[in-house]
Amino acid sequence: MALTDLPLRDLLTAFSSKDPTPGGGSASALASAVGASLLMMVAGLPKTRSGSDEDRAALAQAGSALTDVRAQLTAAIDADAAAYDQVVAAYKRPKASADEQAARKAAIQQALRAATDVPLGVVRLSAAALASAIAIAAHGHRAAASDVGVAVALLRAGARGARLNVEINIGGLSDADYAKKAAAEIERLAEAAARSADEADARLRD
Amino acid sequence: MALTDLPLRDLLTAFSSKDPTPGGGSASALASAVGASLLMMVAGLPKTRSGSDEDRAALAQAGSALTDVRAQLTAAIDADAAAYDQVVAAYKRPKASADEQAARKAAIQQALRAATDVPLGVVRLSAAALASAIAIAAHGHRAAASDVGVAVALLRAGARGARLNVEINIGGLSDADYAKKAAAEIERLAEAAARSADEADARLRD
Repeated sequence: MALTDLPLRDLLTAFSSKDPTPGGGSASALASAVGASLLMMVAGLPKTRSGSDEDRAALAQAGSALTDVRAQLTAAIDADAAAYDQVVAAYKRPKASADEQAARKAAIQQALRAATDVPLGVVRLSAAALASAIAIAAHGHRAAASDVGVAVALLRAGARGARLNVEINIGGLSDADYAKKAAAEIERLAEAAARSADEADARLRD
Repeated sequence: MALTDLPLRDLLTAFSSKDPTPGGGSASALASAVGASLLMMVAGLPKTRSGSDEDRAALAQAGSALTDVRAQLTAAIDADAAAYDQVVAAYKRPKASADEQAARKAAIQQALRAATDVPLGVVRLSAAALASAIAIAAHGHRAAASDVGVAVALLRAGARGARLNVEINIGGLSDADYAKKAAAEIERLAEAAARSADEADARLRD
């Protein structure tokens, strides 16, 4: 059964069980999906910061972008668990002969690459949601300011958590070129995400 | 239906709907409940940092404390929505006569007090979970370090989000004495939570 189909109570039990998945990667995607959802809520409220057409247009654009981002973050909750299950399965492959060892090694590398790509995507999506949060903070209804503040905090946590998962999996990759590119992208995305989060928080205090 | 009984996918839809609840308060409790769950997972792993009896004892104690904290955080997801629904209902009470106005005012104050107490409890619980995270970071299996790092990030976000909800509801309280005490407690808890989170992150790097 997909994690996203589980009742929340059962999902929490799954996170606390000692099975390898779901783990921190799915938890990070979940935190960012909740953050994006709260921003969508504020974008869709009938009231805006000043009631202007400019507010309405900015919120409609941000809300539309966030709908897509939230769908991808939701998919990543299950995708991260599936990718990590593949890593575990690859390590369990037979390694008696040289052929088996080569096949196992290739399978591990392929699985680790997918287990890096999923959280890298979550960092990208969290950074995109935080960029949209600036418009929501500037144009959204003041009564919902604490919801936007919570969303920003959850998206910061989701981005940081996903980054930790990228970094741990990069460590096992033998493709040094890909590992270097991913590390550089993560660095850029983390800076952009932090800048957007700080700007959104500042707009809430305007 | 309780929020915690909803499939995750439907819960995300509820967070993005423009209904007043669930909002940032429930989202903060959820983030901290996921963080506590990941820490419970690491506490229950068969492997520990060094395989020592000291590790095992420290993890058992932290895991037991977190089981209780996670149960209370899970209950707070629904309790926050219920408390805020009461605030909305109180504001909708009739206010034609002086008696109605007095009854409405009292109902609003009672509801706001509950809507402050729930997120204040979430800040306390998040701070308690972060205190347990130090032991988990110091004694837990190194292979789960990224899960502990994600848990710390989620608990920081849950504590910050719950604090924003306390502060917005405190603003409407006429009981200045309670408001002052709550504000002072929030300040102390936030400092303690940040210190514990920093220490847990430092132990992960040891």
